[in-house]
Amino acid sequence: MDIYKQALEEHARLKGKISISLRAQPDTKENLSTFYSPGVAAVSKAIAEDHDKLAEYTWTNNLVAVVSDGSAVLGLGNIGPEAAMPVMEGKAMLFKHFGGVDAVPIILDVHSADEIVTAVKAIAKSFGGINLEDIASPICFEVESRLKEELTIPVMHDDQHGTAIVVLAGLINATKVVEKSLSDCKIVLIGAGAAGTAIAKLLETYANPEIITVDTQGVIMPDRPNLTKEKQYLSKLHLLAPGNEYTLKDALLEADIVIGVSKAGMLKAEDIKIMAKGPIVFALANPEPEIIPQVAIAAGAKVVATGRSDYPNQVNNVLAFPGIFRGALDNKLTDITDKHKIAAAEVIAGLIEQPTPDTVIPSPLDPRVSAAVASIMI
Amino acid sequence: MDIYKQALEEHARLKGKISISLRAQPDTKENLSTFYSPGVAAVSKAIAEDHDKLAEYTWTNNLVAVVSDGSAVLGLGNIGPEAAMPVMEGKAMLFKHFGGVDAVPIILDVHSADEIVTAVKAIAKSFGGINLEDIASPICFEVESRLKEELTIPVMHDDQHGTAIVVLAGLINATKVVEKSLSDCKIVLIGAGAAGTAIAKLLETYANPEIITVDTQGVIMPDRPNLTKEKQYLSKLHLLAPGNEYTLKDALLEADIVIGVSKAGMLKAEDIKIMAKGPIVFALANPEPEIIPQVAIAAGAKVVATGRSDYPNQVNNVLAFPGIFRGALDNKLTDITDKHKIAAAEVIAGLIEQPTPDTVIPSPLDPRVSAAVASIMI
Repeated sequence: MDIYKQALEEHARLKGKISISLRAQPDTKENLSTFYSPGVAAVSKAIAEDHDKLAEYTWTNNLVAVVSDGSAVLGLGNIGPEAAMPVMEGKAMLFKHFGGVDAVPIILDVHSADEIVTAVKAIAKSFGGINLEDIASPICFEVESRLKEELTIPVMHDDQHGTAIVVLAGLINATKVVEKSLSDCKIVLIGAGAAGTAIAKLLETYANPEIITVDTQGVIMPDRPNLTKEKQYLSKLHLLAPGNEYTLKDALLEADIVIGVSKAGMLKAEDIKIMAKGPIVFALANPEPEIIPQVAIAAGAKVVATGRSDYPNQVNNVLAFPGIFRGALDNKLTDITDKHKIAAAEVIAGLIEQPTPDTVIPSPLDPRVSAAVASIMI
Repeated sequence: MDIYKQALEEHARLKGKISISLRAQPDTKENLSTFYSPGVAAVSKAIAEDHDKLAEYTWTNNLVAVVSDGSAVLGLGNIGPEAAMPVMEGKAMLFKHFGGVDAVPIILDVHSADEIVTAVKAIAKSFGGINLEDIASPICFEVESRLKEELTIPVMHDDQHGTAIVVLAGLINATKVVEKSLSDCKIVLIGAGAAGTAIAKLLETYANPEIITVDTQGVIMPDRPNLTKEKQYLSKLHLLAPGNEYTLKDALLEADIVIGVSKAGMLKAEDIKIMAKGPIVFALANPEPEIIPQVAIAAGAKVVATGRSDYPNQVNNVLAFPGIFRGALDNKLTDITDKHKIAAAEVIAGLIEQPTPDTVIPSPLDPRVSAAVASIMI
């Protein structure tokens, strides 16, 4: 059956993919008195005296909020918080299944950075971590950086960093396959949204390669007017001579790696042909990649990754976020740092002993991944 | 073992009384594609086109938030949101066990009426109903009335209305025992906080008896300066001559019913002795009632109720809220009205066929209660 029809039918049948379960039953007078009034008063008093006891006595030690305002849902755009809910609920499923993390979907009916930050801060003590999701760029950058600064629990915008971690993992292995050093690679990045910006930042921190970022107006150059803070940053990661304008084609000439986080059809066979020897193509647009893998390979691509499960090398955030938060909760981390993200990428890459063109990234269903990522000691 | 010690040990052992469980597993490529990307995109699109589908396709159809700012936790007062969490988590247990309702505890780190309303409105679309809990009076009144007005999902402050419903249920049966009509009774109410105010309102709506409310300054009279809106209301429910001041003792003279929602020791044996024939005493302070039941009975009380499980006639909100929200969710109610609350009280009272002095209220563990309350057709 068509996957979309099947999804509608299954969602209608389940009427909710997650539910609350009880670890004990308030089914006797004694249990009622132990888990609720009056016994719980002793627990409240203990927490009032020492807030660290909150995580010892309540479910917050294993709990993440999956928060979205519905402004950038999947590839569907700004379709509102209600429409974001089934995605956030699905994410909660993945958190539990792959990481053993309890996750509660929270959809926000506010959309400015100030309002989102205020709402998340108001409820943050209910949780042990905050996974931001499907919030449009550039608001997502301010929301995440302010929450990371102002909260003492780990906060991660998964569209940025989950993607960046898995892309880095894939590139670590892909560059092994083509026998190049990532630091020496010229990388073209198509798309300067949440994922693109985070990929560039993590790659720069990890290996400091040349990164040429292309958006709908062409290569982002430092002298383009009205650049956001993030695009100003991206404009400085390459060596193209200022004062000129460059197209995607200009950028791809002799490039070693192209990473697309944009839309279907952005790359043609002739684009791959002008790249350097042994092109690495990460065509991550969903559901249709920037270029069909067979077309890219026929044009000379050596390693191709997409966001899809029906081609080799799926870049799927589920390889990162369950283990990242599992580890953060277990180790009572107050922040998720670049060092942590890089270690996660290395651990994920390391699960593949002998990278080949068709195997640079583990399967999202590989049961080793989450535990390996969670076990990172930062 | 001491119940407080046992509660601490059990909470430390469980490390969370609730958790998230999955109704399906994302354990195959097909299931991942059905419950998450790309299949879920069809569900998001369907909800974007018709917001009513949110409840059909997601867990919101069975979901309530239990929201507190920690400003009036149990009898412990303003001990903060962290310390409120084990109580809210306990409430979530009761919602699930007694009503089959999924409930998520949300503790708020904001405390003004404006901030609480703003935060709850921001997250409200994540839920099918809002149970407000342990928010101090008088802020609780403004918070509840604004949220009821501004949201289209049912909102109920349980400390007010859960208590009022069960008290009314108990009084319906208690007045049968003493063969009086509630409308003709003179009622003394000790305590003018959230519970007291809601009890007075529901009693007035149901039977319009005379109600004399006493707070720490004595009987609330209309000419007392600086009365809150709620205390102005309470001051007008009795027939005491204005221009005078009255004590609790003055109020109790020839009273038929006394309801304490105040603190231990507020009532003495001699107070009961000056009441009318067949006194009804609801001494609901927790954990120590206003008067010990044996003392009240020795002084002539005919029916005594408390908040405790170790005496007959426990006034426990769990008789009301699970069924109230179960019914509201099942019937897609947008509000919980006075008519609904009165019907709930009548249903709860009606479960006792032959009220006796020791049996005017069903046991909180009576398995019939929640279903009966949920089945009310409003």
